[in-house]
Amino acid sequence: MDIKRYMIKDTKEIRLNKLDPDDTGVFKSKKEVEAKTEELKARLAELQDILFAQKKHSLLVILQGMDSSGKDGTVKHIFSGINPQGFIVTSFKKPSLEEEAHDFLWRVHQKTPPKGYISAFNRSQYEDVLVPRVHGGLKKDDLKRRFRYIRQFEEMLVEEGTTIIKLFLHISKEKQLKKIKERLEDPKKHWKFDASDLQEREYWDDYQGAYEDVFKETSIDKAPWYWIPANHQWYRNYLTLSIVVKTLESLDLSYPKLNTPTPDISELISPRH
Amino acid sequence: MDIKRYMIKDTKEIRLNKLDPDDTGVFKSKKEVEAKTEELKARLAELQDILFAQKKHSLLVILQGMDSSGKDGTVKHIFSGINPQGFIVTSFKKPSLEEEAHDFLWRVHQKTPPKGYISAFNRSQYEDVLVPRVHGGLKKDDLKRRFRYIRQFEEMLVEEGTTIIKLFLHISKEKQLKKIKERLEDPKKHWKFDASDLQEREYWDDYQGAYEDVFKETSIDKAPWYWIPANHQWYRNYLTLSIVVKTLESLDLSYPKLNTPTPDISELISPRH
Repeated sequence: MDIKRYMIKDTKEIRLNKLDPDDTGVFKSKKEVEAKTEELKARLAELQDILFAQKKHSLLVILQGMDSSGKDGTVKHIFSGINPQGFIVTSFKKPSLEEEAHDFLWRVHQKTPPKGYISAFNRSQYEDVLVPRVHGGLKKDDLKRRFRYIRQFEEMLVEEGTTIIKLFLHISKEKQLKKIKERLEDPKKHWKFDASDLQEREYWDDYQGAYEDVFKETSIDKAPWYWIPANHQWYRNYLTLSIVVKTLESLDLSYPKLNTPTPDISELISPRH
Repeated sequence: MDIKRYMIKDTKEIRLNKLDPDDTGVFKSKKEVEAKTEELKARLAELQDILFAQKKHSLLVILQGMDSSGKDGTVKHIFSGINPQGFIVTSFKKPSLEEEAHDFLWRVHQKTPPKGYISAFNRSQYEDVLVPRVHGGLKKDDLKRRFRYIRQFEEMLVEEGTTIIKLFLHISKEKQLKKIKERLEDPKKHWKFDASDLQEREYWDDYQGAYEDVFKETSIDKAPWYWIPANHQWYRNYLTLSIVVKTLESLDLSYPKLNTPTPDISELISPRH
């Protein structure tokens, strides 16, 4: 699996409408990746166990995307097999009054993973540049500043031992409509329906442009963005797992050794007393 | 009161042993500033009330200094007259395991003041450069990086609406010994005595050099350092109050206006019903 194909590098030329949300790489159907996906999930659980034991690195997975692009589903599918004790997911909703009284990174910084942990952000600091970019409320200079704060903040986290993966779940406008309809029709999905999603849909093109700005400003070497074609859940899951596993494998993960001389365990079980 | 005299600007040439801890400005005795000090305390309470009502700015006062330099006493004397509802003081001690598992700014960022508030840090992020500088544990590059993180972090806070005042309480080595002795002799001060203070005293010169580095690296225009001659409590309090009050006066503080049309209050008290 060549994950680099999905890394957003040449950001000057980035145009989201040139990236195909229906892309499924070299695969044609879910069947072809099912076994591989299960293997990756098992591998992720192994790697997380070492990460947790070693307490040297941490991993932060940032999930962004349009409404209904599958952020919740990705968290559910990718991380359902790992030890929940070493995993923290945070959904960033509309800021509280207390959060609004601080700089926009305040609430985000608090939720960064401690060493040994994986954290997932379901939405993130990027909402604080996307929303004002689309709906106004910040001057151009203020937006630029926020981009700078984000770069500096992420660089600091990375240098201090947190690996950051930033994923943009890329769906088509048609696919979004289909998913919104499902939410209206399926009683099990009613709870996911939010009328404001329909309002935000009106701003589709603005959001796409805002995301292009985000990639230009923040796809830094230390914390790159990946675009995840997300019209097909099976490929989205397979690709995301591949990126997470590859990234963890690139770290020097190993179980720590005993830091005391190995005790002679026979003493403990011998009938001396 | 010319507070600029105490602002640390020409940091290339900064030598702590050129700054007199016995300095009392143009004053010769406590008596001369007593009335002025009370006036400043009253003025501070007024300004804090507006700050709290307006909820536009916040103020962060960072207190650093050698052991026994008077950080606790400064907090007590300067801020005892203000509304505690709008004031938060945080003492940063040895990091907890949870704090150590994060970057060193993690715990500090959480305690930054929300809009409308004054926060005092009794020790701060600066301990995380001072201690490794004196006792080792970080490579030179890592220390440089931490200084950069601190600059970027403070710049961000300032640009987002927090005014930062950084105070170095400057005492002499003799004065420190005198204060340690008092703590041993006065039963009311026994609780303040910490044997490790005597150990750290051995590193006096190293700490002075470490502070000079701190000033060189972090006395930025947006968040300058002040040195506070602290051998004489009365001058230390008077000077600190002067700096805090002058700084607050430089902000555009004003009570917010009613944002509804003024209701006709006579209706509420007229005997119509």
